[in-house]
Amino acid sequence: MIQLDFEKSGGLIPAIVQDAGTGRILMLAYMNPAAFEKTLQTKKATYYSRSRNALWTKGETSGHVQHVREIRVDCDQDTLVLQVEQTGKGACHKGYESCFYRAVQGEDLKIVDPQVFDPEKVYK
Amino acid sequence: MIQLDFEKSGGLIPAIVQDAGTGRILMLAYMNPAAFEKTLQTKKATYYSRSRNALWTKGETSGHVQHVREIRVDCDQDTLVLQVEQTGKGACHKGYESCFYRAVQGEDLKIVDPQVFDPEKVYK
Repeated sequence: MIQLDFEKSGGLIPAIVQDAGTGRILMLAYMNPAAFEKTLQTKKATYYSRSRNALWTKGETSGHVQHVREIRVDCDQDTLVLQVEQTGKGACHKGYESCFYRAVQGEDLKIVDPQVFDPEKVYK
Repeated sequence: MIQLDFEKSGGLIPAIVQDAGTGRILMLAYMNPAAFEKTLQTKKATYYSRSRNALWTKGETSGHVQHVREIRVDCDQDTLVLQVEQTGKGACHKGYESCFYRAVQGEDLKIVDPQVFDPEKVYK
């Protein structure tokens, strides 16, 4: 069995989600043991929603499922990297490919990526 | 001023560290407001060590400094991506380029990357 250190951060570990093809970092999400087990079993990325306090399979509303190609574990066993094939145009609920669509420029944040879908049509 | 949501996770936000050249994810670390400010000012990645409860400029022991090329902020303003130029052979205190040197294979973790430096010589 794979032992992960869920206790260090109060029961949830961060999972960095990276596009397996481009290497683009798409998002960061959190997993509890049940989310990790479900992801292993289904090969579809499943997280724990801190706002809804529930398991959440990415794409269940948007259709933008993440098929998991590889899972890496860090030296401290308290962080994951998921290499995924992102279906649909993007991972971000704001309509961008990546949640990291803004860059620090001087004292401000600037949007540096194009919006690729209309979130109001995808998240009804 | 750039507003980040430090409160959501109890004062620290996760920073994903990515090699600016290769796109490889090197590590995940945490920042408090002082670490973020110091990183902005010095352009050298500075984190907050949860085990030592202190600011920690990456490379202060190993010499493996991370020069920050770009900082991205996510949609919820509670996670960062640092694009860095990693000096030295690697970021991981275990002697690997990346902390994510192991992959889930079946029921086990398997080391899938080569060790690139001897940590006992680097971390004296």
